[in-house]
Amino acid sequence: MFRHQKELQFEVKVDRPDPVFARQVQEVLGGQFGEMTVMMQYLFQGFNCRGEEKYKDMLMDIGTEEIGHVEMLCALISQLLDGATPAEQQKAAEDPVTAAIMGGINPQHLLVSGLGGLPTNSNGVPWNGSYIVASGNLLADMRSNLHAESQGRLQVARLYHMTTDEGVRATLRKMLARDRYHQYQWMAAIQELEEKNGVVVPASFPPEAEQESQPEAYEFWNLSEGTESGEGLWAKGSAPDGTGNFVYISNPVPKGQIYEPLIPATELHHDLNGETIEK
Amino acid sequence: MFRHQKELQFEVKVDRPDPVFARQVQEVLGGQFGEMTVMMQYLFQGFNCRGEEKYKDMLMDIGTEEIGHVEMLCALISQLLDGATPAEQQKAAEDPVTAAIMGGINPQHLLVSGLGGLPTNSNGVPWNGSYIVASGNLLADMRSNLHAESQGRLQVARLYHMTTDEGVRATLRKMLARDRYHQYQWMAAIQELEEKNGVVVPASFPPEAEQESQPEAYEFWNLSEGTESGEGLWAKGSAPDGTGNFVYISNPVPKGQIYEPLIPATELHHDLNGETIEK
Amino acid sequence: MFRHQKELQFEVKVDRPDPVFARQVQEVLGGQFGEMTVMMQYLFQGFNCRGEEKYKDMLMDIGTEEIGHVEMLCALISQLLDGATPAEQQKAAEDPVTAAIMGGINPQHLLVSGLGGLPTNSNGVPWNGSYIVASGNLLADMRSNLHAESQGRLQVARLYHMTTDEGVRATLRKMLARDRYHQYQWMAAIQELEEKNGVVVPASFPPEAEQESQPEAYEFWNLSEGTESGEGLWAKGSAPDGTGNFVYISNPVPKGQIYEPLIPATELHHDLNGETIEK
Amino acid sequence: MFRHQKELQFEVKVDRPDPVFARQVQEVLGGQFGEMTVMMQYLFQGFNCRGEEKYKDMLMDIGTEEIGHVEMLCALISQLLDGATPAEQQKAAEDPVTAAIMGGINPQHLLVSGLGGLPTNSNGVPWNGSYIVASGNLLADMRSNLHAESQGRLQVARLYHMTTDEGVRATLRKMLARDRYHQYQWMAAIQELEEKNGVVVPASFPPEAEQESQPEAYEFWNLSEGTESGEGLWAKGSAPDGTGNFVYISNPVPKGQIYEPLIPATELHHDLNGETIEK
Amino acid sequence: MFRHQKELQFEVKVDRPDPVFARQVQEVLGGQFGEMTVMMQYLFQGFNCRGEEKYKDMLMDIGTEEIGHVEMLCALISQLLDGATPAEQQKAAEDPVTAAIMGGINPQHLLVSGLGGLPTNSNGVPWNGSYIVASGNLLADMRSNLHAESQGRLQVARLYHMTTDEGVRATLRKMLARDRYHQYQWMAAIQELEEKNGVVVPASFPPEAEQESQPEAYEFWNLSEGTESGEGLWAKGSAPDGTGNFVYISNPVPKGQIYEPLIPATELHHDLNGETIEK
Amino acid sequence: MFRHQKELQFEVKVDRPDPVFARQVQEVLGGQFGEMTVMMQYLFQGFNCRGEEKYKDMLMDIGTEEIGHVEMLCALISQLLDGATPAEQQKAAEDPVTAAIMGGINPQHLLVSGLGGLPTNSNGVPWNGSYIVASGNLLADMRSNLHAESQGRLQVARLYHMTTDEGVRATLRKMLARDRYHQYQWMAAIQELEEKNGVVVPASFPPEAEQESQPEAYEFWNLSEGTESGEGLWAKGSAPDGTGNFVYISNPVPKGQIYEPLIPATELHHDLNGETIEK
Repeated sequence: MFRHQKELQFEVKVDRPDPVFARQVQEVLGGQFGEMTVMMQYLFQGFNCRGEEKYKDMLMDIGTEEIGHVEMLCALISQLLDGATPAEQQKAAEDPVTAAIMGGINPQHLLVSGLGGLPTNSNGVPWNGSYIVASGNLLADMRSNLHAESQGRLQVARLYHMTTDEGVRATLRKMLARDRYHQYQWMAAIQELEEKNGVVVPASFPPEAEQESQPEAYEFWNLSEGTESGEGLWAKGSAPDGTGNFVYISNPVPKGQIYEPLIPATELHHDLNGETIEK
Repeated sequence: MFRHQKELQFEVKVDRPDPVFARQVQEVLGGQFGEMTVMMQYLFQGFNCRGEEKYKDMLMDIGTEEIGHVEMLCALISQLLDGATPAEQQKAAEDPVTAAIMGGINPQHLLVSGLGGLPTNSNGVPWNGSYIVASGNLLADMRSNLHAESQGRLQVARLYHMTTDEGVRATLRKMLARDRYHQYQWMAAIQELEEKNGVVVPASFPPEAEQESQPEAYEFWNLSEGTESGEGLWAKGSAPDGTGNFVYISNPVPKGQIYEPLIPATELHHDLNGETIEK
Repeated sequence: MFRHQKELQFEVKVDRPDPVFARQVQEVLGGQFGEMTVMMQYLFQGFNCRGEEKYKDMLMDIGTEEIGHVEMLCALISQLLDGATPAEQQKAAEDPVTAAIMGGINPQHLLVSGLGGLPTNSNGVPWNGSYIVASGNLLADMRSNLHAESQGRLQVARLYHMTTDEGVRATLRKMLARDRYHQYQWMAAIQELEEKNGVVVPASFPPEAEQESQPEAYEFWNLSEGTESGEGLWAKGSAPDGTGNFVYISNPVPKGQIYEPLIPATELHHDLNGETIEK
Repeated sequence: MFRHQKELQFEVKVDRPDPVFARQVQEVLGGQFGEMTVMMQYLFQGFNCRGEEKYKDMLMDIGTEEIGHVEMLCALISQLLDGATPAEQQKAAEDPVTAAIMGGINPQHLLVSGLGGLPTNSNGVPWNGSYIVASGNLLADMRSNLHAESQGRLQVARLYHMTTDEGVRATLRKMLARDRYHQYQWMAAIQELEEKNGVVVPASFPPEAEQESQPEAYEFWNLSEGTESGEGLWAKGSAPDGTGNFVYISNPVPKGQIYEPLIPATELHHDLNGETIEK
Repeated sequence: MFRHQKELQFEVKVDRPDPVFARQVQEVLGGQFGEMTVMMQYLFQGFNCRGEEKYKDMLMDIGTEEIGHVEMLCALISQLLDGATPAEQQKAAEDPVTAAIMGGINPQHLLVSGLGGLPTNSNGVPWNGSYIVASGNLLADMRSNLHAESQGRLQVARLYHMTTDEGVRATLRKMLARDRYHQYQWMAAIQELEEKNGVVVPASFPPEAEQESQPEAYEFWNLSEGTESGEGLWAKGSAPDGTGNFVYISNPVPKGQIYEPLIPATELHHDLNGETIEK
Repeated sequence: MFRHQKELQFEVKVDRPDPVFARQVQEVLGGQFGEMTVMMQYLFQGFNCRGEEKYKDMLMDIGTEEIGHVEMLCALISQLLDGATPAEQQKAAEDPVTAAIMGGINPQHLLVSGLGGLPTNSNGVPWNGSYIVASGNLLADMRSNLHAESQGRLQVARLYHMTTDEGVRATLRKMLARDRYHQYQWMAAIQELEEKNGVVVPASFPPEAEQESQPEAYEFWNLSEGTESGEGLWAKGSAPDGTGNFVYISNPVPKGQIYEPLIPATELHHDLNGETIEK
């Protein structure tokens, strides 16, 4: 069960409204790597967690924090939109320059939300559940979390340069700090889990079943012309878990057959000539 | 520019058709972490790559390989569907047990694709572009790639136990091996990049701008009751890059204000009583 | 079966083209609460109606009217786009102000529809079937209809202030009038249905099954700090159907357990240490 | 800012696992009217609220409660899935009846979430942000809330009859009770707001602008053959706010013109013969 | 403006309910090529038509007919669902065979629509506006229409074999007949338009601008190993409009450069080493 | 299996960056009829092809070529974005005209892709799998292909007029040439298939089953007022395959019944008064 406190986690004060910038901020609220994503991802991982209590508790701590980040971004967007009105759009029709600036506004900030944050990205595409994952495998999911915080912090950093409003920037700095901590946090969790289970996900697939395909687990296939790819760590040396050495296949040859499909029954109406073969 | 060879990368032969299993396999073809995802993700990362040539070349090598994995899975699904016909569905109406089994089939495998693979997941949801990312930041993207291969291999491993068909299993074993290698590969790339740039994405955000929020970059906020989360590596010790020590905040207090929004102009029709204040 | 008359339901004449405004109008054509939504919602409710004939007939009357509203909005958008051409975009590259205004245009109005209305909202997101509902329960659905007409009329009212074109405004006034009537209409239908069945949806759930949880049906849980919520009608007095009195729980305590999930079988590859317990 | 308590709001205990039923429960978790919808809708309405404090506080109370309902449903689904394994699917291949039952399972409960709740509906379609609305107009939004609780309670009631598991039913009874209260709650709020502002949304549109279209605000257009629709309250009597009397137009005649669009410029490549007229 | 007649265009009577088949029928109602698609596509093409009146009138005739087809399919699905109840699902829990059959039902037919048609496909994916096109170019659009009727009729034909219910089959036969006519209709329209404008869309692109790339307009690039593709009409002989002869390039060589992108500004945080070059 | 060559198929060089135009180009990369669509459509048709080898080989040739077109468009967009930075957005806040122009940029080109192409259309809507079809019926699919190339070339032609950059135009001319050839190619394939199988898809539906509805296969129903539609080839003369003559029904009368649905069981909670009839 959850509870709400009226204070925001960090202060959100905007020096002056900027409805065009409000549109850009939507990316880090309702975009692929926005706060809605990390909030829902950590909550679902926590709700479904079947691992040790410390992981579940930690996921619930951070998932709960992220609900408050969605709250902060809505407060930020609302302030950026303060004072924007349909009438300004109307006046814009008379002054071409203003008109043009208003053209960069998200029309839904006026028409749909009445000057509030939307559950959508910077192009107005609604947030959706396929942005998140909660697989039950802790290592896989924490790699996902590290990746989400990396993309999220990258976007906040880019956004930071798109405004000179010191109020906005102060809020973004708090988010950059938290995203920094959250990257550390997932790295630490990953380190723990890799030490226990090994680095390959999932760790528990029966090794004997992998025996047969052992060579293919260490081969780099050079399928794009040029051999610059041979210069990376992935192409020489040994696997991080020391189970084998990498092999660079410069001229890879396919190992499979040419697949020749059966002709389906007439009822599927492929309308082919010749023999119809039903298996 | 690309070229196609008729042979599949690895052999795909199914011992006997199994249209219900064909539905499950769709997850690793057109699902969130299926082969379409890694194919499109690596290709877009490669096409857009503005980094060193060895990264671009490597991304093109593996992106090109993944197109062939989509090809293999279509061949697998086609074979699993061989012989499934509308007439079997009709006969099923007479035998309740068969009818019931046919109820587990993806109806689009008959109606839409005529016994072929679909660009959708195991529930028929179409693949979409928001499954992928190509941000230009190599470290962020390679963390995404490691995560995608982790989730993908996890799903293939789970799928493996859902069939006893030795032909299918042989194909899945090749995919497990390649997913193992691809995890190693991204780990190696990540190791290189972290050594050069540091572990936090993005590395180039000006440190002076982070000064002010320095404390918040090392704090764990315990927002879910219980302190089991204090037992993890993320709660004690120091950051992976040695820039600070973690602080566990047991009873966190919000640092922000209670946000009191302005009343918007009448034209937005919030229909509030009292004074209308326009900023 | 349906028939079409060539005349529009109401006159649609635009004083002068305005391609930027055409983009905004898309919200009330193909957005969440646009005319496509009410058209499809009323038609599906009518097609599926298993209630008294008067409801079905009424739904078909209004659903049929709404097809004509989609027609009117397409005529409106087409006229707003009249004369917009790719060449203007080209000229725009030379004059920064014009260029900027053109930047506010929906590019699909040129590229995709060739100056016609699109089945999308003001941000170009395609209309989809999850905007509508037809549940079979008349009271539930008519509440949905009242809500859709409320949101829809609100958006048209906001849009009205974003233009000074008298031709456009005359069309919007007709839509505002119809949306007013349609709100009355659903209120009247709701009044009838509530008098017959009671105010809670669904009315027919067996009361004995609700006995046990009777208290929870009248409690307000104060889960956000502060007790301003105690001042509303929902917190004091009695239920609209007189079946009980509201109770304001100032300091709610959870009534459930701490959920401790089972560890799943190894084959699910959660990769946990310790005992694996299969139920 | 938010906090989490470990106890669930109400007890969630399942008598025996039932993975097929777990699939159906997804509808009220991640469907159009599931708990994710009311949670996100109330939170966004609360975050963006520019009205009196008592509305904002109330929205935050109930939005916060709904986060806990998502938590409860995840606990319910996890328990319904306990013990489901890929191996059972494999065994199913041998026993046709079991195989058939397993065919009704959501494959993503095994492959994607590893026996946890998913942010999707009963057909696996991901939850998305266009399920919700927060318009800033309190009356419009509370009508939406009443409607959502009506559809949601209807679905839970239908679901109730699809299981005989007493544990599950006890949980569903709590949800039915809360959905009953929440319907009362929105009705009470609506009553307050209608008394203050009037029944038509939005109330603040300038009456003089509506003058011209006054007749169309009270007319029922009989566009579907048959006049059964004339028997309802919406067709006779007066508007709920007493501003006029309803008129039933039995044989409605269109009032608009036949729209004759202009031929667009050649550059749009409509490829028409005859004169090209650019406005 | 539109009107509705109570009679269905053709009789829809089902011999006996079949809720599993109801799920399959959804494909031709709300799927990519279902009746909702042709209805909305022809209506939008008609509403936006800027061509000769005979095309607009014809599009409105057929678009209006298709609304009635959506109506017919809803009647078909309703009848297939008659008598399906949650209680049957409950009884199913006791009889494994029945349970299994019920597993093939679309759960939303019970939970969401209460035994009515849904605006979704056979897997429950909502219909969306990107299934349709209305480009303004008549030839392009009528090719789209011919294609939609081809896919649609193919699906109905496949569906036909999945039932033995004579009532259902009689309805499907009417749809097959109309889809046959509609294919003829678009072919006839295409023939007219190709005779006037030529076979390549769009016809009006200035020929001088195409001069430079003239060779590439007639070349087949053999980019997949093997030369079986050389046996088709597309590889030998001349273009349908007699403007050139096809050339089969057996060993195609790329004509473009190796693209070397610029390094972006630091603010984009690609985190590259070495020189940062801003253009 | 696939291979990649570093050279682009055709040269892609841009005279000067133009980030607003980069947004428009996204339509032909990731839109409904963009290069991602034809790439994925031809590849899936090829992978699933159960017809003669020459069709499969041809589909693989052209599908493989289209991967290279996606590559070219990414190179085009990257060059159009060269030099765009968040700092320019910041400067824009000072100069209204520049600000306005920047308002026409896709914010995701800065925030998400870091100056690279995105798998989305010109409004930022992600590409999705329901844009494509691979039905197994060659004639149906090649009609789809002809249609896709027609819409695609139309969009490129419109785009051509929206820029004066000679570098961009040279690239677009190559695409126009290839789209011309691809239209010829599908026409040729269609001609072959129609000669073998007949013009109606599918050809193999048993003629005796169509006997009963023979009249409806040749009737034009005039459901929109006015008889201009009687002037087209589709209304007079005979079917393209000579199997019958068209009949123009000026005043069509419905042939079906008025559908009267059954009242569902109480458990579905339609909450109707009167008798409950279960079938």
